[in-house]
Amino acid sequence: MAEDNTVFIGKKPTMNYVLAVVTQFNRGSNDVVIKARGKSISRAVDVEQVVKNRFVLDSKTTQIVTSTERLKREDGSDTNVSSIEISMKREIKEQKQEQKN
Amino acid sequence: MAEDNTVFIGKKPTMNYVLAVVTQFNRGSNDVVIKARGKSISRAVDVEQVVKNRFVLDSKTTQIVTSTERLKREDGSDTNVSSIEISMKREIKEQKQEQKN
Repeated sequence: MAEDNTVFIGKKPTMNYVLAVVTQFNRGSNDVVIKARGKSISRAVDVEQVVKNRFVLDSKTTQIVTSTERLKREDGSDTNVSSIEISMKREIKEQKQEQKN
Repeated sequence: MAEDNTVFIGKKPTMNYVLAVVTQFNRGSNDVVIKARGKSISRAVDVEQVVKNRFVLDSKTTQIVTSTERLKREDGSDTNVSSIEISMKREIKEQKQEQKN
């Protein structure tokens, strides 16, 4: 899966990122990855839930991976920040049946 | 797994919840579940990462499940809030080998 399918969650309103994910799916991506760090992790889960429950009803979450990233502070010292990667997949039924044959 | 093994994440400092999870493991629980809603979801991931990387090095994350819960606001109207459940397991090697025999 290309990096193009990744939506990075920042501090903008949740619906901005929901729109970004929905747009990815509508452009034909079957997989979208939502990534976030630190306090934006909560918003990443909001985005995933809103996409799944309200906009792309045939999508589902295939994997959630958490990790810790080491970042440099402005003063040069290191700090740890948690991160999350939520992988979503769209279930395209027609295509799935074709693949089975 | 009993509800006793569940640590609910609120608005206290991260280390309070880290201590709660570590205590569960030290009391002999092989499984601990970390639950959080809304903005506390980010802290739940912090807790999981700190426990795994610094305090209980033989623990690992076995499952992460997200969902949406319907809550009542103070004025009686409904609102949706995202939630997360992080399941952690301690790998006790000796015990594992015994179970295999």
